[in-house]
Amino acid sequence: MKIPTYDDMLAARERIAPYIHRTPVLTSSLLNDLTGAELFFKCENFQKAGAFKVRGACNAVFGLTGDMLEKGVATHSSGNHALSLSYAAGRRGIPCHVVMPRTAPQAKKDAVIGYGGTITECEPSTSSREEVFAEVHARTGADFVHPYNDPRVVAGQGTCSAELIEQVGDLDAVVAPIGGGGMISGTCLTLSHDAPDIRIYAAEPEQADDAARSFRAGHIIADDAPETVADGLKVPLKELTWHFVKNHVTDIFTASEQEIIDAMRLIWKRMKIVMEPSSAVPLATILKNPEVFAGKRVGVIITGGNVDLDALPWME
Amino acid sequence: MKIPTYDDMLAARERIAPYIHRTPVLTSSLLNDLTGAELFFKCENFQKAGAFKVRGACNAVFGLTGDMLEKGVATHSSGNHALSLSYAAGRRGIPCHVVMPRTAPQAKKDAVIGYGGTITECEPSTSSREEVFAEVHARTGADFVHPYNDPRVVAGQGTCSAELIEQVGDLDAVVAPIGGGGMISGTCLTLSHDAPDIRIYAAEPEQADDAARSFRAGHIIADDAPETVADGLKVPLKELTWHFVKNHVTDIFTASEQEIIDAMRLIWKRMKIVMEPSSAVPLATILKNPEVFAGKRVGVIITGGNVDLDALPWME
Repeated sequence: MKIPTYDDMLAARERIAPYIHRTPVLTSSLLNDLTGAELFFKCENFQKAGAFKVRGACNAVFGLTGDMLEKGVATHSSGNHALSLSYAAGRRGIPCHVVMPRTAPQAKKDAVIGYGGTITECEPSTSSREEVFAEVHARTGADFVHPYNDPRVVAGQGTCSAELIEQVGDLDAVVAPIGGGGMISGTCLTLSHDAPDIRIYAAEPEQADDAARSFRAGHIIADDAPETVADGLKVPLKELTWHFVKNHVTDIFTASEQEIIDAMRLIWKRMKIVMEPSSAVPLATILKNPEVFAGKRVGVIITGGNVDLDALPWME
Repeated sequence: MKIPTYDDMLAARERIAPYIHRTPVLTSSLLNDLTGAELFFKCENFQKAGAFKVRGACNAVFGLTGDMLEKGVATHSSGNHALSLSYAAGRRGIPCHVVMPRTAPQAKKDAVIGYGGTITECEPSTSSREEVFAEVHARTGADFVHPYNDPRVVAGQGTCSAELIEQVGDLDAVVAPIGGGGMISGTCLTLSHDAPDIRIYAAEPEQADDAARSFRAGHIIADDAPETVADGLKVPLKELTWHFVKNHVTDIFTASEQEIIDAMRLIWKRMKIVMEPSSAVPLATILKNPEVFAGKRVGVIITGGNVDLDALPWME
């Protein structure tokens, strides 16, 4: 297993700079009052393709050389990684093959196609996805870019917290959502070098708490198909992200579905930004653990903003 | 009628700076592609109290002297002006009396009370509002701060476009929504001095197009209680705002209810910001009049973000 280094993150930063936004950091005096902390929200919902995932995807795509440029990239995802990889490949003008369940939202499929990606549909099951992906991969010879268990992707995600600490200076803690662990791993990669005193906390839905249980158990526990409103956080850790979680994360906190939805509404209502349920899990856990965060300067990663405006979680 | 001067705007800027945000300007490559223009969105939805109105309210409140500080301020409004005046008065620690219809949304009443304002309820009719306001005004001796027909308010709103042109440099046009005309008047006040070549366009709902008809007729036409999803834009011009509209506005464009809702959704979906229907009217008119804006650098005022998340206009 190749572990990406701090220099890989620096190289990623230079490589992807022309294709991504340096996203703004927002603050809210009301949320500071509510939590007793000083919160700095890194707004990756304003990122290209609507999520931080474009950082890792661009790093993989723009690092390709030689005949891989003709073959392009491939992945399986029904979420932000599919959009991000398609965006990156489109910017470089190389093929992008995405295996998506036929049941994925039409809006997501349209976005992949809009960026120039090619979709091969599978049934909504792990076996079908793996079978169809193996066929696509063999047929195209494209480079498989895993959504998070890939050193190029983790190095790319690490550029987010490098920007954050440049923008706001010293912090006591950073809180990011954890699903597969790509964002948390990138955060660990960068901060363990640049600011090792900053504590890194991961935030996870109670209903998909496999990372929290892995953290307590000391080995990866993977759940099959958990259900949560935070739909970006259903996937399990893999060996690369487990490496970073195990070595650099201070703790993993969880929040209930209602706490996540309440935190999401609070952010929409008071900060006037559109963001995904997954991105609300950090604030939900901060509100729930005031003794950990009160009086501290805390970075909060708002990971993405791709939400279905017709199916907001507080609608019936 | 006292017409505020450019120096009044400069004084307002200094007076209100500690109490307001210098709001960010956002851009969207997708919206640029769609319109053929280069759009610069001045995001007053991120402003204190959620709307630009806090600029004028702070200018009035922090300009008070002597025994008026004990008597405080009063207004009638069920919208952003009520919140903004309460916020400003709360920051200065003076009384704020707001006459609101008893049918106003509880969330708005709660916000006024949260900022320290005192609400007196009236029936939802013009006659009741005037009667109740006259009683409150006589009893308290408070200074009446009209939502827009007040030179202090217009001078305050003018600070918004002063920031905008500092932030983005030269522009060919600015488009802002028009209801009573406070924002448009402030824009005219500032730009006619700082950048007289910038064309100023007002954007109005078709269903509340009294300003557009006034503009064509050459005198104020006031409609009684028009109905539109852009609920901040139902009020008519008054003599002070008519002065600026008549002398400095290039044209007034209108958009249908559906065009407004579509533009609002487009902004939420692609720019990931929460803003009010009123704030979507400029983009709706830009999309509708590409020949006016294509190839131009255009400032667009997003006037506010106070929207009921349980009653979004695309919900059934």
